[in-house]
Amino acid sequence: MYAAILAGGVGTRLWPRSRQTLPKQFSDITGSGRTMIQATVDRIAGFVSPEQIYILTGARYRALAAEQLPALPEANILVEPSGRSTAPAIGLACIHLRRRDPDAVIAILHADHVFRDEAHYCAILQQAEVAAQAGYLTVLGAQPDTPHTGYGYIKRAGDALPISGAWPVFRAERFLEKPDLATAQAFLAEGSYYWNVGNFISRVDVLLAEFERQRPALYAGLLQIEAALGTDHAEAVLQEVWPTLENISIDHGVMEGAAKVAVVPLDAGWNDVGSWDALDMVLAAGEDGNCITQGTVIQTGCSGNIVSGGDRLIALVGVDNLVVVDTGDALLIGHKDKMQQVKEIVDALRLQQREDLL
Amino acid sequence: MYAAILAGGVGTRLWPRSRQTLPKQFSDITGSGRTMIQATVDRIAGFVSPEQIYILTGARYRALAAEQLPALPEANILVEPSGRSTAPAIGLACIHLRRRDPDAVIAILHADHVFRDEAHYCAILQQAEVAAQAGYLTVLGAQPDTPHTGYGYIKRAGDALPISGAWPVFRAERFLEKPDLATAQAFLAEGSYYWNVGNFISRVDVLLAEFERQRPALYAGLLQIEAALGTDHAEAVLQEVWPTLENISIDHGVMEGAAKVAVVPLDAGWNDVGSWDALDMVLAAGEDGNCITQGTVIQTGCSGNIVSGGDRLIALVGVDNLVVVDTGDALLIGHKDKMQQVKEIVDALRLQQREDLL
Repeated sequence: MYAAILAGGVGTRLWPRSRQTLPKQFSDITGSGRTMIQATVDRIAGFVSPEQIYILTGARYRALAAEQLPALPEANILVEPSGRSTAPAIGLACIHLRRRDPDAVIAILHADHVFRDEAHYCAILQQAEVAAQAGYLTVLGAQPDTPHTGYGYIKRAGDALPISGAWPVFRAERFLEKPDLATAQAFLAEGSYYWNVGNFISRVDVLLAEFERQRPALYAGLLQIEAALGTDHAEAVLQEVWPTLENISIDHGVMEGAAKVAVVPLDAGWNDVGSWDALDMVLAAGEDGNCITQGTVIQTGCSGNIVSGGDRLIALVGVDNLVVVDTGDALLIGHKDKMQQVKEIVDALRLQQREDLL
Repeated sequence: MYAAILAGGVGTRLWPRSRQTLPKQFSDITGSGRTMIQATVDRIAGFVSPEQIYILTGARYRALAAEQLPALPEANILVEPSGRSTAPAIGLACIHLRRRDPDAVIAILHADHVFRDEAHYCAILQQAEVAAQAGYLTVLGAQPDTPHTGYGYIKRAGDALPISGAWPVFRAERFLEKPDLATAQAFLAEGSYYWNVGNFISRVDVLLAEFERQRPALYAGLLQIEAALGTDHAEAVLQEVWPTLENISIDHGVMEGAAKVAVVPLDAGWNDVGSWDALDMVLAAGEDGNCITQGTVIQTGCSGNIVSGGDRLIALVGVDNLVVVDTGDALLIGHKDKMQQVKEIVDALRLQQREDLL
């Protein structure tokens, strides 16, 4: 199996640790000692070698990716000439892979997700590989435990497919956009809905065939880029064609309309770490009931706080359910329930032209 | 009038801005641009010249005091050989003054107090000088507006004394230790009780006569020190006698038992800034309802916070009634109602031998 890791975004809701110059995937958000993209590569190391891993990112992050992932061949860092949605990026990975190994199975992963139970995640990813070999565009579906309105959902259909392996695989009946609360509650009660984790596993030939059938113009562009690979004008063609590629997500552009889609349920404590308050869902709190990812904290009468500290001592006195992030040049203190509003801070800094902090 | 400013303490409850190396009186706690001791000298500048102001502090703070108060003669910085209570320190100031001006009136002030209405404070201090000239040990009594259990109280007796000036002066009947809540409530209801501000104004000869009458041993020690003043062995005598002086407060050792004590009521927004939560009682909150003494703050959906920042940007998101103090090497985040517990943090740091932060 090969992996293509999507690493092009800038997570402003994890400001101030996530910056334009150092997006969250290149930062150690969880305090593991590894950046999120390093953790993503480490997680699958047991069955995907560095040579088989591709990174998709922007030009300004190529050097960061190379530096943080020295075991990867530099040629495996694929640069998107400009930020577009996921379908063009994944198409780019697919044509590179088809040239190298026409029988390849590709797992499309995100550089900034966390799985509490990594062993289970790996088992499910390998189960998905079996389904992909059987010709399915395969997605991982996380077992929902709350009626989350911030995720897309996938509905499974019928009984488990006759696919070998220890874990059940179902036909995916529908992809559903982020629902309202009542709809999400109904999904949860119904029992056959999963969160769309955004991990896609497929044979490269099957996935490209779906591009060709559903997005012929995009596919034609990919073919132009593919034809130039390995030649002197590969980069020039990429630069020329890329801006013309349809700017559409893989979910909307390919998965929703695909002929043969499977879902493998996953119960591995998945989290996309969309904002700081997610951290205590993926990390265990310490003895004192606070979740300290980094830094030195001394506290009295505090609980439920999330701290991502830096060099300086952080003293907490009688406070609960706060997020505290100290990056040396900026300090964020917010209530856990209000962390979506970090975006407002970033917007205000942009208005103030504080490029040094963005 | 002369002033003696008590500046020997270390306010651990204002950690991390108040340190052993830089106690609160030498720090700009309120964000005025001046340290608290500088503000204390500035406050009385209209009627007490720098040459008439004495500072009482420890040896380790002599240089700080001299640096922060360059207009004061260095000889006016009186060093207490070791930390003792207020009676020995005030006695030391008195014998220096008696040598210089036997008819002096001395105002004993604190280096770390704040008065919201400085003009009124000055008027009352000058009224107290008139009472002192008439032979009274005179104290300022702040009009209480809450049944505070952390202050001592003074009870006035009878009608205003026949002392000239615009402001009433009463005989002080009793000094009362910090009361319990019910007692404090009764004081407030009764109406003739004031908070003991700890400002004492007296003729030096009157005050020393009370030392002699009530604390003869202490007074004898002071006489030894006084006899050596101006000689080569002044410092040696001070060092020898000082540790033998009775370690007692001026309130308990002299004022409570004094023959002729007056109180001048004061309604000037006095605050002893005993802990961080006091700051929004002495400072006006900004437009957004937060009290920012220093630093750059950007916020959304926050109110009632007190911020004493530093160089880095502080972003607040959806938090209320917090105290945030950033000193570069340490960061304090606490709930306004729990700021007495800062002491526990300081105690813990002491146990951890974090001398760098104490």
